[in-house]
Amino acid sequence: MVQFREKMGRFFGLISFEEALQRISSNSWTKPGTMTVPCSDSPGLIACSTVYSKSNVPRYNRSLVDGFAVNSRNCAGATETNPVKLKIIGIVQAGETTSHYSNAGECIEIYTGGRIPPGCDSVLMAEEVERETGFIISSRAPEPWDNVEKAGDDLHAGTEIVRSSGIIRPWQAAAMISSGVPEVEVFRKLRLGVISTGNELFRESEDYVENTNQIMLTRYFRRSFVSTEEIGILHDDQQEISGKIRESIQNYDALIITGGTSLGGRDEVPDAISRIGKVIFGGVMMRPGRTITLYKVNDKPVFSVSGNPAPALISVEEFWERYIETAFGVTGLRRKIMARLSCSVTNTPGYTTILRVKVGNLEDGMIAEPIISHGTGKLSTMIEADGTMVIPGNVEGYDKGQIIEIKFFGDPN
Amino acid sequence: MVQFREKMGRFFGLISFEEALQRISSNSWTKPGTMTVPCSDSPGLIACSTVYSKSNVPRYNRSLVDGFAVNSRNCAGATETNPVKLKIIGIVQAGETTSHYSNAGECIEIYTGGRIPPGCDSVLMAEEVERETGFIISSRAPEPWDNVEKAGDDLHAGTEIVRSSGIIRPWQAAAMISSGVPEVEVFRKLRLGVISTGNELFRESEDYVENTNQIMLTRYFRRSFVSTEEIGILHDDQQEISGKIRESIQNYDALIITGGTSLGGRDEVPDAISRIGKVIFGGVMMRPGRTITLYKVNDKPVFSVSGNPAPALISVEEFWERYIETAFGVTGLRRKIMARLSCSVTNTPGYTTILRVKVGNLEDGMIAEPIISHGTGKLSTMIEADGTMVIPGNVEGYDKGQIIEIKFFGDPN
Repeated sequence: MVQFREKMGRFFGLISFEEALQRISSNSWTKPGTMTVPCSDSPGLIACSTVYSKSNVPRYNRSLVDGFAVNSRNCAGATETNPVKLKIIGIVQAGETTSHYSNAGECIEIYTGGRIPPGCDSVLMAEEVERETGFIISSRAPEPWDNVEKAGDDLHAGTEIVRSSGIIRPWQAAAMISSGVPEVEVFRKLRLGVISTGNELFRESEDYVENTNQIMLTRYFRRSFVSTEEIGILHDDQQEISGKIRESIQNYDALIITGGTSLGGRDEVPDAISRIGKVIFGGVMMRPGRTITLYKVNDKPVFSVSGNPAPALISVEEFWERYIETAFGVTGLRRKIMARLSCSVTNTPGYTTILRVKVGNLEDGMIAEPIISHGTGKLSTMIEADGTMVIPGNVEGYDKGQIIEIKFFGDPN
Repeated sequence: MVQFREKMGRFFGLISFEEALQRISSNSWTKPGTMTVPCSDSPGLIACSTVYSKSNVPRYNRSLVDGFAVNSRNCAGATETNPVKLKIIGIVQAGETTSHYSNAGECIEIYTGGRIPPGCDSVLMAEEVERETGFIISSRAPEPWDNVEKAGDDLHAGTEIVRSSGIIRPWQAAAMISSGVPEVEVFRKLRLGVISTGNELFRESEDYVENTNQIMLTRYFRRSFVSTEEIGILHDDQQEISGKIRESIQNYDALIITGGTSLGGRDEVPDAISRIGKVIFGGVMMRPGRTITLYKVNDKPVFSVSGNPAPALISVEEFWERYIETAFGVTGLRRKIMARLSCSVTNTPGYTTILRVKVGNLEDGMIAEPIISHGTGKLSTMIEADGTMVIPGNVEGYDKGQIIEIKFFGDPN
């Protein structure tokens, strides 16, 4: 029979949540390789360095409206009672250039995006002028640069478009392309593999349990810059587990392995991985998921988490994000908001508690309703939740009405 | 020369933003087909109907901890000074069943997730008992169901797991699988095609302009349940445009066509599409993007938007979401929050203004900083922005400090 105290020894050395995060930050991890892609393929990927615009956007002065390009001096003093009449001497469409030079008494018809013709400095809107065949009549004197977007008004050459380690957004890709940057260096997608262990996950098992944690983790951690894959179910067998990890760590940047982390019983995972890697931490003073263990194998992270889907996901997410931050420099993976607590919450001293919360909009701000339930493993509590809040170990609890930070769950990708 | 007043006639009938939304809701649109998928493939897709759990989760009473299953009556009255000694008569792992029946003076060793053996009603945690070979000594009397998760505690048979038209989250997929629902009916991915028009987008053009709007819209509207595709650049040619739309509408559920929407000039798009479809609205009293026009071709939406990327995206997004809501029933596509305005904002009477905002977390809530800039077309204003706020046409503006609703931009998919 297994000796509990001995098995538990591993967890007598539980470290604080903050210390666990710190150990991830202070370790070095193999970074995924980089690649150069056309900017049009870059949205959702992570930039390896800061990108600046190479040229002005727009490249030339252009019209913001449909109307008539004029020289403001030629309309000086125009009013309702003393309008000015200008001859239309040409037309400019978007993407066209005109060599017409607008002199006194003249104007040039122009469309949105059209290049401001030589001799002109402003545009009268089509709606604000009267038309006569071949002429316009304006009762307004425009200011120089009225309705004109000057070269570089949007992006001056040298403006920062994407920050190093930023997740590229579609408009940043557009801005790079517009400003003469056709390609960008990005990290290739991070490859995360998820392995499950447990004899009960095999259909021939007496009390067969569906392997939902692998599905949940694989689908949840999939992002525009993270590809995830299910890489199988293993028996509670050290040989099988260490063999699979040794093989998988060649093809993946990171692994999550679920199950076999309890305080006693058939805990083959720790023994199997300890053989081939280094323990970064073994157990964290946190709820849920205190048995979470991080190994470093070939300078890559292997997270060993609970076999219970909800605690597995909740407990690994903050550490996973810290690893991404350390390896890629990416911060703010999830959207953070501030919200008022709908009720008070308490904490076990020394333990960091991660609570699931439901978020609502009120007239005067946001409200967060902690989902408290007997047992932390329930899927039902995830179904109602929008995100999580963290109560640090040195905080006894929060009062109803206190404003706390909430992180939204990531959306399916 | 083009007659401005005539061309503008189309936009004299500008309707309100609310009316435009209403016209989308009150029209019927071809729904994408449905398909049945294994629940493991369902995250990110849209459920066609409400799904309820078929069986209890967990299926049986199970232990929440590692420890010893007992009958609470057998420990009644146990204290520090008067502990109770129980004989260990067996062991139960997760996924195992025991036929051992625990009688008075007996207990059964049990691991997290293990099925509570017959005769037992509670579990003493390993940490809270003393061990002697073959025995445990408890100085605590457990309550019935201590550390036990009862059958159905997580999900009772018949509990709602996914609501009809809900985007399935990974934990909902897990819950369906756990509760005996292996497959689910979902909408197949919506196919959105993006077409650009404009002679200036062709490399041989005099004042060549990079076609960034197609890239931006295609990348931005891609979601777990929407596939998007660039389907080409067209000349400002009615024949070419109507031919391409006629062809594309066979293969896509919806189209966005950019360019050719200005008040005058070479507006081939409206004339081309009017030939083959019905105008739902032509121009909206909104900024940016008032030229936005919606056609219905083969009962599918064709949005004609500005050729300027930022106004194109900002103006079409609310209407696109309303269409998705009408066709699929999906609501709340973007995360909404409430935030305090960092400065006052004003509105043009009658016009609905959509402002880009930067969002920040403060100690006591969230703050939104409107990004005000000369000209609404700038990509640079998108780069800084986290989302948008809407000032309805009947609101003159908002004061600094007022709490308003913000919608975050969607993340790259």
